[in-house]
Amino acid sequence: MVEILTVSTGRQGLFEFTAQVQALVDRSGTEEGLCTLLIQHTSASLTIQENADPSAQHDLERWLARLVPENDSLYTHTFEGADDMPAHIKSALTSTSLSIPIKSGRLCLGTWQGVFCWEHRHHASSRKIAVHIGR
Amino acid sequence: MVEILTVSTGRQGLFEFTAQVQALVDRSGTEEGLCTLLIQHTSASLTIQENADPSAQHDLERWLARLVPENDSLYTHTFEGADDMPAHIKSALTSTSLSIPIKSGRLCLGTWQGVFCWEHRHHASSRKIAVHIGR
Amino acid sequence: MVEILTVSTGRQGLFEFTAQVQALVDRSGTEEGLCTLLIQHTSASLTIQENADPSAQHDLERWLARLVPENDSLYTHTFEGADDMPAHIKSALTSTSLSIPIKSGRLCLGTWQGVFCWEHRHHASSRKIAVHIGR
Repeated sequence: MVEILTVSTGRQGLFEFTAQVQALVDRSGTEEGLCTLLIQHTSASLTIQENADPSAQHDLERWLARLVPENDSLYTHTFEGADDMPAHIKSALTSTSLSIPIKSGRLCLGTWQGVFCWEHRHHASSRKIAVHIGR
Repeated sequence: MVEILTVSTGRQGLFEFTAQVQALVDRSGTEEGLCTLLIQHTSASLTIQENADPSAQHDLERWLARLVPENDSLYTHTFEGADDMPAHIKSALTSTSLSIPIKSGRLCLGTWQGVFCWEHRHHASSRKIAVHIGR
Repeated sequence: MVEILTVSTGRQGLFEFTAQVQALVDRSGTEEGLCTLLIQHTSASLTIQENADPSAQHDLERWLARLVPENDSLYTHTFEGADDMPAHIKSALTSTSLSIPIKSGRLCLGTWQGVFCWEHRHHASSRKIAVHIGR
């Protein structure tokens, strides 16, 4: 099964969508298998991170923003906005695809793990993620 | 087939577990297929790196420790210890899931490639990795 | 189906090979499924990036070269050349494996996404990539 999920973003940051993915797994009826996600953009990415304490997500976002600042004089690709080239770099440093085993009909995530869309642009409204569920 | 592997760590660093993964592939009887790993933690990660020369692993660990130091004044998520927030960041910069094709019953790795659990905390004793083997 | 693709590189940089992967998907006759790539090297990597504007690729390469320079006094693994240890680090920060859903016989990539081999060494002539196509 291949489906396209839409995740609303609207601002830079981490947006959890674990429940949307698990709902697709439920609908597929897969008891044991593999769920693979691919984000169809190059200025947003995917990550699996702690979903319990928002301070961890907050620090992660700020750390990466400091490593890859806007208005770096190195950038020549600037005509799409000051946040565009940093977004491509952040995307390359994190994940475009992720795969999660499924057991007993559930995503095999750890207790504190959530699946996040990481929006790297200021004004993108939503992102598309292709999801494959197989055995 | 979905199984959970346990890799002993105990200190920061790279711990190779290629043989444990190949043993699961052997047990599954899969001649051609795909083996996918997901680490069920957000303060340790996965990487495929050179397994021949320990100096390459050593430099890799030290380089990442310098990029993501402890006690950075940026961190607000500090109550789980000075090594916790750097561990989440290192995890986001490396891999949470990895997929390896299987051919003739063997993981299709290059000659010098090994599969490693990268422990980012000082005192974690072991890590769980979900493994899916499919065709 | 598992096949080995060869991508010519020859110098540091991003080399797109989306067409080679789509040709394998075509040959497999897969209408809906999953295509997984694993690069069999630890001094080159994979990335999905914008394939429209070469300036984005150029900035990405230069940014990573600045983050991970040659001749850093931290390196002890130096006998394979000044570009070897930076290549391992760059490989760890980007991707060794990538998975792309297939729908209606096409890789489910976004409009501007291309699949690239990222060569991190100055004089490597080509790289091998294991490709699994499944349902």
